[in-house]
Amino acid sequence: MNREVTVGLIGAGVMGADHARLLSGAVAGARVGGIYDVDEARARRVAQDSGARPLIDPLKLIADESIDAVLIASSDPTHEEYVLAAIAAGKPVLCEKPLAPTVAGCQRILDAETAYGRRLVTVGFMRRHDPGYLELKRALDDGDIGAPLVLHCVHRNPTNNPGQPSSNVITNSAVHELDVSRWLLGEEIVEATVHTPRPARAAGGTADPQLLILRTASGTLIDVEVFVNAGYGYEVRCELVGETGTVQLDTPSATVARRGGGTTRSLPMDWRPRFAEAYRAELQHWVDGARRANPPAPSPAATAWDGYVATYLAQACVQAFETGGPVAIELPNRPALYQP
Amino acid sequence: MNREVTVGLIGAGVMGADHARLLSGAVAGARVGGIYDVDEARARRVAQDSGARPLIDPLKLIADESIDAVLIASSDPTHEEYVLAAIAAGKPVLCEKPLAPTVAGCQRILDAETAYGRRLVTVGFMRRHDPGYLELKRALDDGDIGAPLVLHCVHRNPTNNPGQPSSNVITNSAVHELDVSRWLLGEEIVEATVHTPRPARAAGGTADPQLLILRTASGTLIDVEVFVNAGYGYEVRCELVGETGTVQLDTPSATVARRGGGTTRSLPMDWRPRFAEAYRAELQHWVDGARRANPPAPSPAATAWDGYVATYLAQACVQAFETGGPVAIELPNRPALYQP
Amino acid sequence: MNREVTVGLIGAGVMGADHARLLSGAVAGARVGGIYDVDEARARRVAQDSGARPLIDPLKLIADESIDAVLIASSDPTHEEYVLAAIAAGKPVLCEKPLAPTVAGCQRILDAETAYGRRLVTVGFMRRHDPGYLELKRALDDGDIGAPLVLHCVHRNPTNNPGQPSSNVITNSAVHELDVSRWLLGEEIVEATVHTPRPARAAGGTADPQLLILRTASGTLIDVEVFVNAGYGYEVRCELVGETGTVQLDTPSATVARRGGGTTRSLPMDWRPRFAEAYRAELQHWVDGARRANPPAPSPAATAWDGYVATYLAQACVQAFETGGPVAIELPNRPALYQP
Amino acid sequence: MNREVTVGLIGAGVMGADHARLLSGAVAGARVGGIYDVDEARARRVAQDSGARPLIDPLKLIADESIDAVLIASSDPTHEEYVLAAIAAGKPVLCEKPLAPTVAGCQRILDAETAYGRRLVTVGFMRRHDPGYLELKRALDDGDIGAPLVLHCVHRNPTNNPGQPSSNVITNSAVHELDVSRWLLGEEIVEATVHTPRPARAAGGTADPQLLILRTASGTLIDVEVFVNAGYGYEVRCELVGETGTVQLDTPSATVARRGGGTTRSLPMDWRPRFAEAYRAELQHWVDGARRANPPAPSPAATAWDGYVATYLAQACVQAFETGGPVAIELPNRPALYQP
Repeated sequence: MNREVTVGLIGAGVMGADHARLLSGAVAGARVGGIYDVDEARARRVAQDSGARPLIDPLKLIADESIDAVLIASSDPTHEEYVLAAIAAGKPVLCEKPLAPTVAGCQRILDAETAYGRRLVTVGFMRRHDPGYLELKRALDDGDIGAPLVLHCVHRNPTNNPGQPSSNVITNSAVHELDVSRWLLGEEIVEATVHTPRPARAAGGTADPQLLILRTASGTLIDVEVFVNAGYGYEVRCELVGETGTVQLDTPSATVARRGGGTTRSLPMDWRPRFAEAYRAELQHWVDGARRANPPAPSPAATAWDGYVATYLAQACVQAFETGGPVAIELPNRPALYQP
Repeated sequence: MNREVTVGLIGAGVMGADHARLLSGAVAGARVGGIYDVDEARARRVAQDSGARPLIDPLKLIADESIDAVLIASSDPTHEEYVLAAIAAGKPVLCEKPLAPTVAGCQRILDAETAYGRRLVTVGFMRRHDPGYLELKRALDDGDIGAPLVLHCVHRNPTNNPGQPSSNVITNSAVHELDVSRWLLGEEIVEATVHTPRPARAAGGTADPQLLILRTASGTLIDVEVFVNAGYGYEVRCELVGETGTVQLDTPSATVARRGGGTTRSLPMDWRPRFAEAYRAELQHWVDGARRANPPAPSPAATAWDGYVATYLAQACVQAFETGGPVAIELPNRPALYQP
Repeated sequence: MNREVTVGLIGAGVMGADHARLLSGAVAGARVGGIYDVDEARARRVAQDSGARPLIDPLKLIADESIDAVLIASSDPTHEEYVLAAIAAGKPVLCEKPLAPTVAGCQRILDAETAYGRRLVTVGFMRRHDPGYLELKRALDDGDIGAPLVLHCVHRNPTNNPGQPSSNVITNSAVHELDVSRWLLGEEIVEATVHTPRPARAAGGTADPQLLILRTASGTLIDVEVFVNAGYGYEVRCELVGETGTVQLDTPSATVARRGGGTTRSLPMDWRPRFAEAYRAELQHWVDGARRANPPAPSPAATAWDGYVATYLAQACVQAFETGGPVAIELPNRPALYQP
Repeated sequence: MNREVTVGLIGAGVMGADHARLLSGAVAGARVGGIYDVDEARARRVAQDSGARPLIDPLKLIADESIDAVLIASSDPTHEEYVLAAIAAGKPVLCEKPLAPTVAGCQRILDAETAYGRRLVTVGFMRRHDPGYLELKRALDDGDIGAPLVLHCVHRNPTNNPGQPSSNVITNSAVHELDVSRWLLGEEIVEATVHTPRPARAAGGTADPQLLILRTASGTLIDVEVFVNAGYGYEVRCELVGETGTVQLDTPSATVARRGGGTTRSLPMDWRPRFAEAYRAELQHWVDGARRANPPAPSPAATAWDGYVATYLAQACVQAFETGGPVAIELPNRPALYQP
C-alpha cells in the first residue's frame, strides 16, 4: 500500500527536469529510477540532481524491471511510440500533452490500451489539478451559478516561437482550453469557428492572437482568446457564466506592492509558476494511483480518451481556422474502456 | 459667457426625471424651464421637484422663446420628430439613444442638420463620459499598450423585459458597445457575426445572452457578451488588448465588506449608479456647449452622425443574428458636417 | 427656492482656485461673485477663469451686498478673522480646515455664532462627503458589522514639507482622521497616545510617519498611521472592525493595466483626484443650504463645533506626541446651538 | 542522500493528523513510523490512515531505533519533555509552537541542545514558509521598498475559546506575529505596549480584540490587531511600510463569484487552508534537512532560539497587557550555537 513507485523518465528538457525535481523533492512515494534524453549530457545532469541513473535506450528503460511507471516528456512526435511501449510493458504512463500529434496516432493508443484491457495512460493536462479550476467545477456542480451558458477563456504568453505555423497556436496552446472546457462542462464540443484579428507584430507572421468560438452539445458557448506573443506576462483566465451568476479564476497573487504611483500585483513570465501546484498535484495523484495508495483519491486526470479528443478538437479548430467557416465536429463513440 | 441655459425636457420617465434632478441640482449653469410628458401627472410631478413648468404640447415647448436647449428622453419612436423640431428651432438638443430607431429616420435628421448648417444634435451615449472609458481611450491614444488587437466587452443586466424580441437585446443594450467601441478605437466596424448559446430560462424566450463578434476596418476584433437577464447584478466590462499590454475597466467600488466567510464588493442592480458620474459629466458638457462656456472643454459626446452609425450597426447585427452568417457592413460616406 | 447663490471667495491658491472652478463649472445654483487673495495677480487670474470680480479688500468683499455666502480658502491664521466677519454679516460661510489653528480662536467663533443665534459656519472636512466614507457610515448605522471595536486608518502623501514641525503632521494631516473618525463613530475621542518609529529620511527631520492610538468614550480603539512623505503616492485607507464583520474603503480605480510583468492600478499623487467627488458634493450641499433648495438634503457637513473639536483633538495629540504618554481628553460641553 | 526518513509522531489531534496526512501523502522522502497520543483510539485511527504503528509510550517511540526524526504536536505543556527526549536521542525534532510555554522551559531546551553541540530542534512557526511572507522578505531584502518603518499586522479567527484567559490571545495567537515580525525584519523587538478596546461580546469575557504596539531595536514600529472571535472568517494580513513603498500580503483566492448583487471572494474558516502550502513546505524542508538531501535548501525555519524568543516576547506582551504601560524587553545574549 505504501510502497515507493520507481519512475522511468523519458525526456529531460524543461518539463522533464521539472518533473524529476518534483518527483524526488515534493511528491510522496516516488523516486526517479532512470532517465533518458536524446541529449545524453542533459539526461546525466538531471539524473545527478535527482539521484537516478541516466540510460541511453528509452525502450529498455521502459521495459526495465526496476521501473514501475513511465513519465513521458520528450518531443511531441515521439510520444506515441513510448506510450505504446509502456502499455506493452503493462506500466502506468503519464504522457505530457499531446498524447500524439495526430488523431490516427491517438487512435492506435486507444486500441492498444483497449487490447490491454485496463487503463494505464494519463495525459498531462495539468490544469485539471489547478485549485482554481477545481473550484470552478465544484461551484458549477454544486449549482452555485445555475446551468452554464457561456465560458470565457483567455490564454496569454509573453512570447512563444514567433513565426511558427499558425496552427501551432491551437495545437500547442489553445488545446489546454479545449481539454479543460470539456472537462469543466462535462460535455463535448460540437462546433468550432476561429476569428482572427490583424496579427501582433511580435508574432512574426503567425496568426496570433486568435479567437476561438466553440459550441457544446447542450448549447453552451465557449470563447477563447489565445495570444501567445502578448508581451506583458503569462496569464490564464476563465469565467463561467451561468443562469444565476458567474464564477471565474482569480489571479493568484501572494503579495501586492505599492511603488511609484501604483499598486501592482506581479504576473509570472511563464506557465510553470502559475501552475506549480497543479503540476505537483498531478504528479502526486498519478503516483498515488500507481502505488495504489490506500485507496487513491478520485483523480480529475485526463485519460487516453481525453487525449484523443483533445487532438481531435485541435485538428477541427485548425480546419476552422483554415476554412474560415464553422466546422461541425462529430466525435466517434467513446470506447467502453473510457465510459465513466 | 456665464449665462444660464434654460432646458426644455421632453419625457419625464425614469431617465427624464433623473436628468431633471441633475440639471437642477448637480449641473452648473442650467435650469429646467418646461417639461412635457405623455403622462401629464408625471410631468407635473417632475416639474414640481425641479422648479419647472409642466407643458402639454411638446412642439410648443421646443419652440418656446424661453427655452434655450432641448433634452429628449421620451419613447424611442418619438425621438425623430422632436429632434427635427429642435433643429427647426435652431436649438441645441440632447437626445437619449437611439437618435431614431430606423436608419431612414436618422438619415432625415442628418439631412435636416446639414441643411441647418451647424451641429445642434448630441446623442446620449453617456459611456463616452465615464471616467473609466476615458482612461481606456487615453491609455490607447498615449501608446501605453501598443496598437489595439482585441476588445473584450461584457454587458449584463439583472433583468430586462423577458420575452422581448431578440433584436431588442442588440438595439437597446448592445448598441452601447457598438457606439463606445468605435469611439474608443477611432474607426468603423465593417463586419458582424452573432453567436447565441442556449438562452437563459429567465429570458422568457428571448435569445439572451448573445455573443457579438465584430471586426473593424483595420482588423481589430471586438467580442461582446450581452446578457440582459443575468440575474446577479448590473455590470459592464471592457478590456482593450494591445500589442504590448492591456487596459481594462475596473469595477468601481467604494467599499469592501467582510462578512460570513467572504470578502464582498457590491454590484449595482441597474445602470444608473454605475454611470452616475457619466450622466452628470454628459449633461455638464452639453450645458457648457449650449452656454458657450468660456470656452467649452472639448467633448467626447456623440453627434448625429454617431447616432446614425449606431442605429446602422445595430440593424446590421440584427441581420447577422437572423441570418447566422457574417454580415459585411458598408457605411455611406460621412457627411462633411461631421468630419472631425 | 431655485435662486442662484453668489459666493465671495477669500483665497485663490490651489484650493481656492479649485473651489472657484467647481462653483462656476460643476455645481448647480452658484456663481463666484468676487475673489480676494493676498496675491492680487493670483486673484485676477482665478477671477477671470470663473467670471468673477477680483477685490482688494477681503472684509469689504464679505460685507458686499451682492455676496450671499463666503468661502474661505486663505492661509490658516486668517480663517478666524474672516469667519467672524461672515458671521457679523449674517452670511453662510464655508471655511477650509482648520476653523482656526487655536482652540481659543475656535471658541471665539463658537461664541460669535451662538450670539448670532443660528448656524452659519461649515468647516471643509470634505471626507464626510466621500462616497466611500458615507458607505462606511451607512454600513455601521445599518448594523451590517455589529458594534464597532477598532477603526484602522492610513493616511499617506507622497511628499509634504520635509522638515516641517512634527506637530504639523497632526494638525494639518491627521486632523482629517480625527474629524472623520468621530463623525463615523458618532462619539467623542477621550484619550490619545502617539507612537513614532525612526523617521523616514525623506521627511527631513520631521517625525514622520506617526502612529496615533485613540480611544473613544465607549471604548472603540482607533489607530492612524499618518505618513506624509511616503513617496509612492497619495492614499487614504479606513477599515471599521465590528463585532461580526468589517467594512473598509476600497481604493477607487477606474481602470487596471497589464504591462511589463504586472497588473497595476494607478494611485493619485495628491488628495484632489482622490476626493474630487467629495469636494463637489461638499460645495453642492453647502450651496443647496445657502439657497434653501427645496428642501436641502440633510448634510453630513462639519459645523463650527466640529471644527472646534478637531482643533482641540489635534492639540491633545500634539501634547501626546510631545509627552510620550497617553493624554486624557475632556471636551467642554457641546453648546446648545450644536445639539443634534 | 535519497533515503527515506522515518518519523515518530507525538500527538494525533487536529494538527498531528494533518501532519501525518502530509508526511505520508504530500512530502517526498518521509514515512510515519509510529504514532503516540494520550488518546489511544485517536492514535490508532491516524496510524491506520498513514500506514504507521500506534505506540503507547511516547518516550519509547522517540528512542526507538527505527525512528529517524520526531514530530511533536501534543499539548503545549508536554512539549519540553518530548523535545528534551529527542535531543537526548540525538534526533531531529520538529515541535509545534510553543517550544515550551515558559521561558525557563525554553531555556532548558537551549541548554540541552547546546550541550549536545548541534542544532536538532525546529519550531513549527509555519508562516516563515508561506509564499506570501517569503515574498515580503525578499522584497524587503532586495530593497524594493527602502528601509522598513512600520509593519501592520492583522490576525483574525472566526472563533477561539470564548472566555479563555486574555493572555492566551497573546501566547496562542499573536505569538505568530511576534515570531514572523522579527524573522521578517531581521532584528529584535525591544518594547511592547498593549491597547485594548471594549471586548467583543462573542469573546465571552476575554480581552479580544487586542492591539499590540511593538518597537524594534532599530526603531521600526509594529502594530498587531489580534481578534480571535471576529466571527466572519480566518484572515491574516501584513503590510510592510518602507521609506519608498510598501508590500503586503494579498488575500490568496482561487476564484471569485458573482451572485446576488455582489462580487465575492471566499475566506477560509480556519488557518489550515490559508497556510496549507506553508505546512507542506515546512515539513518538506524539515524532512530534507533530516535526510541530508543533496544538499538541503537553506530553510527559513525557526530554531530553538527562535522558539525561546517567541515565548519570551509573548510573556513580555502579557506583562504589557496586565500593567497597561510600555514594557522594555531585554533579551539575553544569543548563544553561540544560534549565531547565524
